[in-house]
Amino acid sequence: MREVYVIGVGMTPFGKFPNRPYYDLGKEAVVKAVKDANVDKREIQAGYVGNVKAGMAPGQKVFKELGMTGMQIVNVENACSSGQTALNLAYTAVASGQYDMVMAVGTENLTGGRTGGEALAPDQDDIEGILGNVMPGIYAMRARRYMEQYGATDEDLALVAVKNHKHSSLNPYAQYRNLVTVEEVLASRKVAEPFTLLQCCPVADGAAVAVVCSKEKMLQLGAKGVKIEASILVSGLFKNQPSDMTIPEITQRASRLAYEMAGIGPEDINMVECHDAFTIAEFLYYETLGFCGKGEAASFLRSGQAELGGRHVFSVRGGLLCMGHPLGATGVAQTVEAVWQLRGQAGDRQIQGAKTAMIHITGGGVSGMDNAACGVHIFSV
Amino acid sequence: MREVYVIGVGMTPFGKFPNRPYYDLGKEAVVKAVKDANVDKREIQAGYVGNVKAGMAPGQKVFKELGMTGMQIVNVENACSSGQTALNLAYTAVASGQYDMVMAVGTENLTGGRTGGEALAPDQDDIEGILGNVMPGIYAMRARRYMEQYGATDEDLALVAVKNHKHSSLNPYAQYRNLVTVEEVLASRKVAEPFTLLQCCPVADGAAVAVVCSKEKMLQLGAKGVKIEASILVSGLFKNQPSDMTIPEITQRASRLAYEMAGIGPEDINMVECHDAFTIAEFLYYETLGFCGKGEAASFLRSGQAELGGRHVFSVRGGLLCMGHPLGATGVAQTVEAVWQLRGQAGDRQIQGAKTAMIHITGGGVSGMDNAACGVHIFSV
Repeated sequence: MREVYVIGVGMTPFGKFPNRPYYDLGKEAVVKAVKDANVDKREIQAGYVGNVKAGMAPGQKVFKELGMTGMQIVNVENACSSGQTALNLAYTAVASGQYDMVMAVGTENLTGGRTGGEALAPDQDDIEGILGNVMPGIYAMRARRYMEQYGATDEDLALVAVKNHKHSSLNPYAQYRNLVTVEEVLASRKVAEPFTLLQCCPVADGAAVAVVCSKEKMLQLGAKGVKIEASILVSGLFKNQPSDMTIPEITQRASRLAYEMAGIGPEDINMVECHDAFTIAEFLYYETLGFCGKGEAASFLRSGQAELGGRHVFSVRGGLLCMGHPLGATGVAQTVEAVWQLRGQAGDRQIQGAKTAMIHITGGGVSGMDNAACGVHIFSV
Repeated sequence: MREVYVIGVGMTPFGKFPNRPYYDLGKEAVVKAVKDANVDKREIQAGYVGNVKAGMAPGQKVFKELGMTGMQIVNVENACSSGQTALNLAYTAVASGQYDMVMAVGTENLTGGRTGGEALAPDQDDIEGILGNVMPGIYAMRARRYMEQYGATDEDLALVAVKNHKHSSLNPYAQYRNLVTVEEVLASRKVAEPFTLLQCCPVADGAAVAVVCSKEKMLQLGAKGVKIEASILVSGLFKNQPSDMTIPEITQRASRLAYEMAGIGPEDINMVECHDAFTIAEFLYYETLGFCGKGEAASFLRSGQAELGGRHVFSVRGGLLCMGHPLGATGVAQTVEAVWQLRGQAGDRQIQGAKTAMIHITGGGVSGMDNAACGVHIFSV
């Protein structure tokens, strides 16, 4: 397999844009990424497009008015992991020698049009989902179990939101840029006990794009890219895992494969964008991705290591908690943040000397993690 | 790139099964394909799953109860071309050396559940679609133009349906197996002039699977496969093409690439499964795929060449017109037919001495071919 680089990125701000269809958001991100990569758009040979809710052939609609159809376009869906699925296919297409330069696109509008209300409702035949076993409930049970098992407190969990808001206050692309206190987090309205509103990622619209390129092509273009050291996509089951619901088996498996592929370990990672859909999720991923031991998440967080200025900064863009989570777009937006950080272009939220970044996402069918996909990518400069 | 073979196939009958969810249909096809390939299901390394309407992570739901999650699963969507998109990714994953044995799955339920009614409605912002520029209207305009330009008659078009019903009467997997006459076709209820009901492909549910394998792995297994000589997937625009709406540019382009990749021409092809969504479509594809000259479709058909017993049999399984068109499933079901024919296992509809098969599909967003994908594959024994 060949070496693969990201040579350009672009994204829209994330927020609620009910009047901007997904293809309009997608076009903005494509144009920005092409400009950032400083390439002729006609040299892009294929497009892998992550989207969940838009209906038929969304990628074609993104590329159409840019005059970029003709190439191979593959629309992919893997729930929350759709964006990293697009990136994985883009990586594979270039690594295998099939193409020299392609695009990974993630775009989603969850607030507008007919996809709004029903977007996150359980399937008709999903009895557990109809009875309440949807994402907030599933994560709430994991949180309660974790608190019971390791003595973590409501305040510990709230600190994840406090940290991520501190980060997002420095990010002009974030949906929520306000600072919050532990008291404010805990006083916000209840969603699924122990979660209050500020502990759940909000709905959002947005788009992000990465231009993915072979080393040979990059050198020929005189570009300087960020290397993709690992690209992993796996499937799995949540309910199928062993007795401990505080260990996300699919993430454990995917991250081990990614570390192996990159030949590094957590100690080498400067920043992580993880799937912090709820505050507890960051706790579970500190541990499962190998940044601290089991049950040590609260002290890891309180030590400052996961915060800007720390050794392993988590969710430096504000994470899903402050960006929001436009399903198909998130995985590619994580990539954009990694590239900006590794290039030293992240402005006020720049991680000094960042050399290696990991992005992680995990998602499943509507009623939870039962039909899951997990993506992990590692980048370096 | 490595040589790639299909070493096993399976499918459900096509029909209206409102009470069989897509994953139930998909499971049946997976089990049949694994059995046909005579492999251990644990050796399947990835699944590429074509589906349009089922919502989040459909592939995971297909594989879950079969204990086949863990591997990479990529859910793909390209409107009518979703199934061939899955096949193209499966081909690429094996040809590139990424995997040795993977599955292409197509599954769709269009009649059941909440996806039924709205499934084929135009987008809210699709003014042309809302005004009637949907598939039957688009193909009807192409038909009228073709008839005007080349003098084809209503009877000529009806003969496509007569032929395909003759074929489907020999196919236990077809939704409609009755013989029809020209008079019956023309007397069926009007849909979009000049089309009557029997000239439009029906809604259907169904699933199909192909096990895709490297040559090395196939030899190791002692299996005998059907070789994939060409695997092409492109995007394009319908409205963007030159002045003549009777020339589907995207098909012309994809088929030329496929012939080039396989190093053969139409004269070498024994059978074609094309995208006969309406009777006129077969006419356009006789010509665009290179089996007769422009304007010669009616005489090509009347010569018997496209019929069982002829030199280039079109739609020997009954085509979309008699099978129906469960969007995500169709491209893989075309593959299943090609494999059965090339192995000499097609029963009463067997094409004697079939050595080379082509499958073709083209699809786009709801309101027609404006955001299109086209797949062409060529197989040989």
